[in-house]
Amino acid sequence: MLSELSRDQLTELHGSLRAGYDELRGRGLSLDLTRGKPSAQQLDLSNGLLELPGPGVYRDAAGTDLRNYGGLTGLPELRAIFGELLNLDPGLLVAANNSSLAVMHDSLVFSLLHGPVGAERPWKDQPVTFLCPTPGYDRHFALTDSLGIRMVPVGIGPDGPDVDEIARLVADDPSVKGLWAVPTYANPTGAVYTPEVVRALVSMPTAAPDFRILWDNAYALHHLTDREITPVDVLGLAAEAGHPDRVFGYASTSKITFAGGGVAFFAASKANLDWYLAHLGKRTIGPDKINQLRHVLFFGDAEGVRSLMRRHRGLIAEKFAVVDRVLSERLGEHGVAHWTEPEGGYFISLDVADHTATRVVALCKEAGIAMTPAGSAFPYGRDPRDRNIRIAPTFPPLDQVAAAIDGLATCVLLAAVEARLAGDGQDAGSDREEVVGSTSR
Amino acid sequence: MLSELSRDQLTELHGSLRAGYDELRGRGLSLDLTRGKPSAQQLDLSNGLLELPGPGVYRDAAGTDLRNYGGLTGLPELRAIFGELLNLDPGLLVAANNSSLAVMHDSLVFSLLHGPVGAERPWKDQPVTFLCPTPGYDRHFALTDSLGIRMVPVGIGPDGPDVDEIARLVADDPSVKGLWAVPTYANPTGAVYTPEVVRALVSMPTAAPDFRILWDNAYALHHLTDREITPVDVLGLAAEAGHPDRVFGYASTSKITFAGGGVAFFAASKANLDWYLAHLGKRTIGPDKINQLRHVLFFGDAEGVRSLMRRHRGLIAEKFAVVDRVLSERLGEHGVAHWTEPEGGYFISLDVADHTATRVVALCKEAGIAMTPAGSAFPYGRDPRDRNIRIAPTFPPLDQVAAAIDGLATCVLLAAVEARLAGDGQDAGSDREEVVGSTSR
Repeated sequence: MLSELSRDQLTELHGSLRAGYDELRGRGLSLDLTRGKPSAQQLDLSNGLLELPGPGVYRDAAGTDLRNYGGLTGLPELRAIFGELLNLDPGLLVAANNSSLAVMHDSLVFSLLHGPVGAERPWKDQPVTFLCPTPGYDRHFALTDSLGIRMVPVGIGPDGPDVDEIARLVADDPSVKGLWAVPTYANPTGAVYTPEVVRALVSMPTAAPDFRILWDNAYALHHLTDREITPVDVLGLAAEAGHPDRVFGYASTSKITFAGGGVAFFAASKANLDWYLAHLGKRTIGPDKINQLRHVLFFGDAEGVRSLMRRHRGLIAEKFAVVDRVLSERLGEHGVAHWTEPEGGYFISLDVADHTATRVVALCKEAGIAMTPAGSAFPYGRDPRDRNIRIAPTFPPLDQVAAAIDGLATCVLLAAVEARLAGDGQDAGSDREEVVGSTSR
Repeated sequence: MLSELSRDQLTELHGSLRAGYDELRGRGLSLDLTRGKPSAQQLDLSNGLLELPGPGVYRDAAGTDLRNYGGLTGLPELRAIFGELLNLDPGLLVAANNSSLAVMHDSLVFSLLHGPVGAERPWKDQPVTFLCPTPGYDRHFALTDSLGIRMVPVGIGPDGPDVDEIARLVADDPSVKGLWAVPTYANPTGAVYTPEVVRALVSMPTAAPDFRILWDNAYALHHLTDREITPVDVLGLAAEAGHPDRVFGYASTSKITFAGGGVAFFAASKANLDWYLAHLGKRTIGPDKINQLRHVLFFGDAEGVRSLMRRHRGLIAEKFAVVDRVLSERLGEHGVAHWTEPEGGYFISLDVADHTATRVVALCKEAGIAMTPAGSAFPYGRDPRDRNIRIAPTFPPLDQVAAAIDGLATCVLLAAVEARLAGDGQDAGSDREEVVGSTSR
């Protein structure tokens, strides 16, 4: 344990870490763990799409010519497949173009300009605050901020966000209009919202009549273990709780087929969908239905998607395992870091010694290892303890993941020792009880 | 000439027209001339897309894996092809997903929420007015209205909109922030803006520092004659005139390849593009680049697009010709209608006797001929003379176009005679001098 070392021992350790770091830097690495991108091998799994729908194939089951305009709600066959997978009524699901972030953007823009169902006035004409379980997804926060919406961080644990804190914040303040949620294998902690948490979120009284949960089920099908959990029927629970319009649901095939050439989805109550489609109909005559047909033919059915996801797991689970193994080997004995062991999704959330994350990322950068900037997973990029680093292990080949994490571990240790020597990091390693994430060490 | 008939002659004509109409109604037709959609035969021309990019093909010329995230500006090879076709620097052109209407929406939404380059404040925080050359494109007007932007109609002739009227309206009123423009084969009149008109529009002083021309070049390549006019270099002219940021340009392949599965484009000055991409980057990580690659491989080069457009012309020019022929045969002698003879684009603009367009469309509907609602081509759906009807002849087979136009002609005549008999249409046929459109009779 670093905290048990004397100053002399720390100085000696610093010397050997510094030498190790200089050696690392000398290797001239160029490794990238920044973004949650599928690897080329994962993308290869969907190469069948490259020659679909195939000669003369351009009609849906009803005989509609999908090459032409129209079909704002998307292909019924694709909605049926993802309705089954996402555990919701396909009639409450619409299929869009390639980006669920774009669907989030549009549903928020429509809320700003026109007000969502139940609003007293458009959101642009009043202060709006969103609650942000933190650490969370940086693009959610960048979007929210760009739309002029104030962000308030709330805590998140392995079973989901802090329901009591959220209930308190929404109860009195009608400016609190939204809560970001990545309910299954949350980005970056891997948290999985339990049915109890979901029930609490859709049931709690809110001061705002137009409060929305932005339910980004980006990783619903992205299991890393045999336990293929079923998505919670959030629309059903919300309706049961008497708040049918509380949820805007999002999903996509971006990490199922092609990250840049997939299909996104929007799920919501009938009233919300009617509202969304009325505004969407001013924006477009319809999505790319040929690409939706391509996906239907490629998947076949819901089981086809599940089977594909198992092949993804076969390619990426070992990368998550190597991250855990190297971090354990290199950092375990020192007590300077905690990290999550997610059962799905795309990220590992690493907490290093307080006030050293920025330094760790800088050291990594100098050694040719690109990490997401420290603080990225926090609203406004502000990590109050400057300790959180998001690890995205899926994109690089396995040996590069191992090399990058080994280098990262050197930087984590070096920064922790530097901080202790500077008399600035006495608490490093003492914050285990506040750890975030599903399972941590 | 209807205007020369006595009341008895009118009554007799009414009787025979009514009999003709009843016979028409008895036929149980189901014909549709409402929307500017390509026909199945036109879509067949691009069926090569259905098996592209092909096995193992997913990289651009630079070697980038197009299946993954990224590439916000779109595929360079596709931008090069359309830069050449649209007569602009490919560096000022970005390629998007399948809908140019969506690109229009987004650029206007960004202007509302953030203010465009040069704005004193976001458009949402001030009154905004757009000038709308009329008759024009109904979806432009529906989008504008839905965004809370006031619309003011301005006239349009064969060479483009009324430049003097526009210059007067923009000179003093800083709320006038936009002008819709379909510069080549305007929807629905077929007007082609001359270089002089364009130069005037990009040069005129405007009270608003953030005035924009919404330059929707939807039909730039959609010639119906041998004269394949080159698009005016509007961005170059605007820069020359000292107003480089005045133009937001839009285009798409919707009526080149698949209406629902093509690629849209945004063209603007460097400053405008930087602004657009900064906001777009919050909305999406990138467009569907595989579909862009599909188009590059299908087209080959700019000449490939031109050649494809000639094959479109081979399929649709005769439909425009039959509309003109049937209208001439049935209406020519009566002096109750004028219509355009466009040299490109997708529409014919028909002006019937004043105050009878609504009646004509209702008569058509009863006879199983679906026409776009009267007034559609006007802001707020208000045609002050209730005389304009948009004809979209591309979608139905040739014999159905002929049958529909023949039925339409019956309805036009019947409504005109009804109006004269009701003493309400004395002016029918006397308004030739005010006709809109490129060439009329």
